[in-house]
Amino acid sequence: MFSSIKPRLFLRHTKKFTIGILPQNQFNITKYSTQKNLNNSWTKNSKFASWGIIASLTSGFGIYYYFKYNDPKTLSSAKIHNDSSVKRDNFKALENNVEKPIRTREKMEQYIKSLQERIVKEIETIDNKKFYIDRWERAQGGYGISCILQNGNVFEKAGVNISVVSGELPKPAIQQMKSRHKELDPSKGPFPFFAAGISIVMHPNNPHAPTIHMNYRYFEIEKEDGSPLSWWFGGGSDLTPSYLYEDDAIHFHKTLKDACDKHDPNYYPDFKKWCDEYFYLKHRNEARGVGGIFFDDLDNKPPEELLAFIKQCGDSFLPSYVPLVKRRMNTAFTAEEKQWQQLRRGRYVEFNLVWDRGTKFGLQTPGARIESIFMSLPLTARWEYMHIPDKNSREDKLVQVLKHPKNWV
Amino acid sequence: MFSSIKPRLFLRHTKKFTIGILPQNQFNITKYSTQKNLNNSWTKNSKFASWGIIASLTSGFGIYYYFKYNDPKTLSSAKIHNDSSVKRDNFKALENNVEKPIRTREKMEQYIKSLQERIVKEIETIDNKKFYIDRWERAQGGYGISCILQNGNVFEKAGVNISVVSGELPKPAIQQMKSRHKELDPSKGPFPFFAAGISIVMHPNNPHAPTIHMNYRYFEIEKEDGSPLSWWFGGGSDLTPSYLYEDDAIHFHKTLKDACDKHDPNYYPDFKKWCDEYFYLKHRNEARGVGGIFFDDLDNKPPEELLAFIKQCGDSFLPSYVPLVKRRMNTAFTAEEKQWQQLRRGRYVEFNLVWDRGTKFGLQTPGARIESIFMSLPLTARWEYMHIPDKNSREDKLVQVLKHPKNWV
Repeated sequence: MFSSIKPRLFLRHTKKFTIGILPQNQFNITKYSTQKNLNNSWTKNSKFASWGIIASLTSGFGIYYYFKYNDPKTLSSAKIHNDSSVKRDNFKALENNVEKPIRTREKMEQYIKSLQERIVKEIETIDNKKFYIDRWERAQGGYGISCILQNGNVFEKAGVNISVVSGELPKPAIQQMKSRHKELDPSKGPFPFFAAGISIVMHPNNPHAPTIHMNYRYFEIEKEDGSPLSWWFGGGSDLTPSYLYEDDAIHFHKTLKDACDKHDPNYYPDFKKWCDEYFYLKHRNEARGVGGIFFDDLDNKPPEELLAFIKQCGDSFLPSYVPLVKRRMNTAFTAEEKQWQQLRRGRYVEFNLVWDRGTKFGLQTPGARIESIFMSLPLTARWEYMHIPDKNSREDKLVQVLKHPKNWV
Repeated sequence: MFSSIKPRLFLRHTKKFTIGILPQNQFNITKYSTQKNLNNSWTKNSKFASWGIIASLTSGFGIYYYFKYNDPKTLSSAKIHNDSSVKRDNFKALENNVEKPIRTREKMEQYIKSLQERIVKEIETIDNKKFYIDRWERAQGGYGISCILQNGNVFEKAGVNISVVSGELPKPAIQQMKSRHKELDPSKGPFPFFAAGISIVMHPNNPHAPTIHMNYRYFEIEKEDGSPLSWWFGGGSDLTPSYLYEDDAIHFHKTLKDACDKHDPNYYPDFKKWCDEYFYLKHRNEARGVGGIFFDDLDNKPPEELLAFIKQCGDSFLPSYVPLVKRRMNTAFTAEEKQWQQLRRGRYVEFNLVWDRGTKFGLQTPGARIESIFMSLPLTARWEYMHIPDKNSREDKLVQVLKHPKNWV
C-alpha cells in the first residue's frame, strides 16, 4: 500500500533542494479567508515542539486550533514568517497541484482541508459572523490553519483547526507509543513522523444548545528509508449538553452509528463504549457528556478502507450537529440556566486540563503552542462549592445520565 | 522530643475504649459558627480516601476547604454524621479540655483552629458578610472545618479551611515520599499517619486587589508502636495580583521576610526562591503571581522551634494581606480591567489543575473530597485565544514581572 512512492517524495529527504524550488508564499490558502489580515497569516512560533503536536494528533483532543480574538493588535504581535528554512516539501504535491496526491497522508491532508472549508462555511452561515483565520507554521516541519469564531451570535467560542506536521519523534514519545505499537523500538529512534488531523470544538451561547467536539487524525512513523514502519487513524466525536434533550442525543448517536455501520458493524458499539470510557471525569464519577464515538490506533484494515471510514465520520459532523444547534439556538433561557451552563463548562475545563491525554501531554512539552492547546477551553467557566442540583430537576436529569451512560440507539 | 507521650495517647490505639468514653457530639466548634444550619454540620463523605487528604497536606495547596453556596438545599443533601465508629481519640485532649495538649500534633491542631477563627473574624469584618461553616468528618479518622464566603461584597470567593486527619498511609504514598524521607520503607508499610493543616485562598472582586493563598501543615508518620518514624512541616503563602502594585508586593514580601528572619536568616531567601520555582506555569513560562514563600519537608530543627516558626508565618497572614485588600477593594475599575482579571483567573485554574501537586494527586485519588480540592478555584474564569496585552500597558507590566520574578525586599 506504500509501494507507489514517486521520486518527488524522495525530495522530502533532500530538503535543501526542495526548499530551493518552492517559492516562499506558494501555500496561501485563501478560499475561505474572510478577514483582511491574511497578509499576516504566515505566523510561526519558533518554540514549537514536535512533542506537543504529536500529542495533539494522537489523543482525544486535537491541540492545534483557533479562536477569534477581539483585539487586532494581538495579531500584529504574531511573528511574520520569513524563515525559508521551513520544510515544506511534504506538502508539495497538494500545493502546486502539479502531481496528484497518491499516498494516504496526502489524501488525508486534502480531505481535512476540504472538510474544514465546508464546516467553516456552514457555521458562518448559522452564526452570521465570520471566522478569524490564523495560519501558523512549524519550524521543524508542517503547518496548521486555525479558524476561530469568538463572541459570535450563536457561538461563544468555536474553532475548526487542521494541522499537518512532520519531524522527528523524540524517544519519550516512542516509549509512550511502544505499548500499543510493538514495532517501535526506542533504541532505534528517533524516527521521522507525519501527522495530519482536524479538530473542532464549538461552545454555543445558548445553554440549551450542546457543545460538540470532533477530531480525526492520521499518524505515520517512517523507517530510515522513508517507508512506513507504522501508521494508524484515530479520532471521534462527542456531545456535551448542559440540558438533556433525549431527541438530540438520539439524533447525534444515530448519525454516527449510520456512518460507522457502513464500514463495520462492530465500529459503533465498540467506539461508543470507548468514548464513554475516555471522556470520563474520574474525580467526579461522571461522563463529560452524552458520548459519541472514540477510537485510536486503528490499523486493522488497509489504509484506503480506513480513510473511507474516516471520511464518512468527518462528513457526518454537520448532519450530526447542525440540526441540534438550529433547534436550540433561539430557545429562551433564564439567568439560572446560563449559570448552570457555566458550571458545566467548569467541568469541561476540568476534563481537558486534568484528564485529556493530548492536553496533558502538550502542556508538559516545553515550547508547545499553548494557544492551540487551549482552543478547546470555553470562553467562560464557573466553580461553586457544593453545587448539587435539586432532585428530579432538569439539571439533575442531566447529571443522572452523565453518571449512568445510556445506549441512545 | 516525642518522649513525653502520656498514657492517654495510648488510647489512640485502643479505639473501642476511647470511643466508648467520648459522647458523639462533644466536638462541636461553634464559637464562630455564624449560620443556622450547624445542626447539619456533622457531615461525612464515606468515600473519603486518605490519599487525597495526604496530598492536600503535603503539597503547595491544601485541599480540604470551603466556599459558601447560595442554595441551602445543597446543605440538607449532605449526610448527617451518625457513625460512632469514627475515630476521635486523636482529638480527645483538645476537645474535652481535661488534659492539655503536649505533643506537636496537638499544638499544631490548636494553633490552626485559633488562626482560622481569627482570620474568619477579620475577613467577615472587611466583607460585611458571614462565612458559611461546613464541617466534615472522615470515616477513616479525622475531620475538617471549612469556612466559605462566596459572592461577598469584597470577595468573590474566600475560603479558610483546616483539616486534622489520621489513618493509614497506603504504599503508593510511602513510595512517593521515600525519595525525600529515606527512613520510609514501603515494604514495611502501611504506616499510621497524622496530618494537620490550614489552607486559605481568597479571590477579591476588585481586579486591583490581589488573590492570596496560604497553607501550613504538619505531617507525622508513626512506627508500629506509635512513636514517630518521620515528621515534617510544610507550607507557604503567595500573592497573585491581576494588576501590579509594587508597593503591595514589597509590603507582602517584607512581612513574610520579617517573620522568617526571626527564626533563620536563610529561610526567606531560600523559601522565596522555592516559591518562585513552585508556583510556576511551565506551559506559559510565567509565575502564577509575585511569589512569597514556600517550603516542604522542614525537619532540620527541633519540632518546637519549627512550630514557633510556623506560628510566626501564620500570624503574619492578616498583616501581610489585609492592608492590601483595604487599599484596593474600593478602587474604581473598568469592564476591561475586570475582563483581564478573569483571564488571569484562567491562569490560576491552569496552575491548580495542571501543576499543583496536591490538586493533581487528590484528583487521581478515587473517593477524594472534590469540593474541597476545588476550593482553590476562582468562582469565574475566562480563556481567550491569543490575548496578548499591549506593550508597556499595565497588563503587560504584570506579565513582564511574572516572566522575570523580582526580589522585592
